Amino acid sequence: MRFAVFSSEGREGLAVAAPGGEFHGLFSGDAGYPGSLDSLVRKGRSALDAAAVVLQKGFAVDLNEVTLHPPLSAPGKIICVGLNYVDHSIESGFVVPDYPTIFTRFTSSLLGAGAPIIRPTVSIQLDYEGEMVAVIGVAGRHIAEQDALDHVIGYSIFNDASVRDYQKKSPQWTIGKNFDNTGAFGPYLVTADEVSPGGKGLHIQTRLNGTVVQDASTDDMVFSVARLISILSEAITLSPGDIFVTGTPAGVGMARKPPLFMKHGDNCEVEIEGIGILRNTVQDE
Amino acid sequence: MRFAVFSSEGREGLAVAAPGGEFHGLFSGDAGYPGSLDSLVRKGRSALDAAAVVLQKGFAVDLNEVTLHPPLSAPGKIICVGLNYVDHSIESGFVVPDYPTIFTRFTSSLLGAGAPIIRPTVSIQLDYEGEMVAVIGVAGRHIAEQDALDHVIGYSIFNDASVRDYQKKSPQWTIGKNFDNTGAFGPYLVTADEVSPGGKGLHIQTRLNGTVVQDASTDDMVFSVARLISILSEAITLSPGDIFVTGTPAGVGMARKPPLFMKHGDNCEVEIEGIGILRNTVQDE
Repeated sequence: MRFAVFSSEGREGLAVAAPGGEFHGLFSGDAGYPGSLDSLVRKGRSALDAAAVVLQKGFAVDLNEVTLHPPLSAPGKIICVGLNYVDHSIESGFVVPDYPTIFTRFTSSLLGAGAPIIRPTVSIQLDYEGEMVAVIGVAGRHIAEQDALDHVIGYSIFNDASVRDYQKKSPQWTIGKNFDNTGAFGPYLVTADEVSPGGKGLHIQTRLNGTVVQDASTDDMVFSVARLISILSEAITLSPGDIFVTGTPAGVGMARKPPLFMKHGDNCEVEIEGIGILRNTVQDE
Repeated sequence: MRFAVFSSEGREGLAVAAPGGEFHGLFSGDAGYPGSLDSLVRKGRSALDAAAVVLQKGFAVDLNEVTLHPPLSAPGKIICVGLNYVDHSIESGFVVPDYPTIFTRFTSSLLGAGAPIIRPTVSIQLDYEGEMVAVIGVAGRHIAEQDALDHVIGYSIFNDASVRDYQKKSPQWTIGKNFDNTGAFGPYLVTADEVSPGGKGLHIQTRLNGTVVQDASTDDMVFSVARLISILSEAITLSPGDIFVTGTPAGVGMARKPPLFMKHGDNCEVEIEGIGILRNTVQDE
């Protein structure tokens, strides 16, 4: 199943794809509306199954005619993984890590598919980073790697747009990773049964104004989704609605000679095989 | 005004101090209960004022006889400042920063005053860090430094207990700063009018089993509360309920020879002049 959160004429709605690919949905307040996708993910897979049944009886939704929102507007934790592809670690001037490099985003930085990523007035170094998202659907602590994928309810796509000069102003990357309207997330939540286990072996590609700038396989991750869940849960209780933003492959603009940063009017697409295409424009603040 | 969030016999309540220092409060569900402190802070100062009036008519609350919780259980952002005291930067092997070093905590790491800080099974390097908290009560972006304190609704205390070996496993400190039950926060939210502007010039002291281990003035901060708000809001919209955990002075256990880490049975107190004393025990996971 693939779910999309949208709004139209001031009303928020939730839609699900039918087997033929077309979406049907309901608005919040409509009879049968099953609740927000945030709330459904927190209730677990059976709640998603039940929601799909009622949404398929709803009205047809043309996703090109509505405003898309992040699949989750309030993830409990946005756990971002740096340096998780070998070639990207090297191009960034770091050694390939033997332990995950974790930073975080605030929900205030999120935007949906189709919305503009905002290039702030204070910087011209706005860079793209295409990434796969794994969404937690089952709580746990001290989760063994072999059990970890049982805790994943679905997958999505992220463009972890980074303000590079601010990322490097201090030893911690937080500010450069948290500018308002820089974390593009969507367009869908695709349930785990529709994706290869752990999202492995998927083609991931980022295109800037149609030119391929990142092109890799999720198999190239240093730490797999299962391994990330196992390692993080050694320290932190994971809860439904938490998301892992699993890192970006080589090809970021900062590492190019000359550097290639995003600017007003650009179009950036991140495509992951079997999950979808996350499209955003870029606008100046 | 000083507010405390507590529970007793399975019910959550909110209390406010009378001029004489004794607390009065109401349980959630009682007639007149004004809502959670999280919700009141999001409504702003006038909501706190109105809440104080009704709480003062409630029952007497002996804070020693109830379970205290963090003043805010769900801060929208927990913005932590590293290396914000000159002597602590030096003892940690860093240069004194010219830009704030920001890391974050998830709400899953929080605990209240009186609760045990949990030393995880995987590490013996659990370290104390006494810090002042500034709570945002008015939203803003691009806030000028001279206007910044208008956005602060109150102050509190934090023990940013850090698992040092995990903090240093990667270039980003996130995991070592986010173990479950390591972020002690409380005991009170003290409204800004009861504290010097920006919490400046306050004596801050941490005691481990009664021995003074950190002893400084909040005047020693590299970046003041007003400056932090101004700089962060260049990138990020600040919202009511966000908190700044403003950094720790010199004296942490990691920098001592030999190192002094917290262990099962320890008592750790962080006292800030005019704000209160945050007391916690330490327990093994």
